[in-house]
Amino acid sequence: AGDAAAGEAKSGMCVACHNTDGNSMVPMYPKLAGQHAAYLESALKAYRDGQRTGGNAAVMAPMAKTLTDQDIANLAAYFSQQKAK
Amino acid sequence: AGDAAAGEAKSGMCVACHNTDGNSMVPMYPKLAGQHAAYLESALKAYRDGQRTGGNAAVMAPMAKTLTDQDIANLAAYFSQQKAK
Repeated sequence: AGDAAAGEAKSGMCVACHNTDGNSMVPMYPKLAGQHAAYLESALKAYRDGQRTGGNAAVMAPMAKTLTDQDIANLAAYFSQQKAK
Repeated sequence: AGDAAAGEAKSGMCVACHNTDGNSMVPMYPKLAGQHAAYLESALKAYRDGQRTGGNAAVMAPMAKTLTDQDIANLAAYFSQQKAK
């Protein structure tokens, strides 16, 4: 299972688009706060593994490729525990 | 721009997984409530147009293929206006 504190420590690459608590202010970028961790993991892996193209994949894939499965679990834990606004 | 009332009328195919107000109870499925409409449109079009594979694409693509651009704008308007829980 993911470690939310480790996820927060790893979230620096996420915050420009998704905001520090996952409540993106940018219309083209999704809010991650309060999402189910299982979905966040699935989405990040689909970007990392080249299964998601189009949309924001040109931005997401290169960042996701730097992540291990454990990093992804940690990030998913962190953002799933933030409050959606 | 999307018509939220028309989107609600069209949302029957969405609710088994995403719940009537977009607050999915199912860990593998994302919450749509309160997402930015522009992101929801982008994601639905990426499923419809075959750019998203993996993850939930096997479920999403066949449903998205039935939608026009206007349907997608309407659904995005509807779910973006629901409150995230």
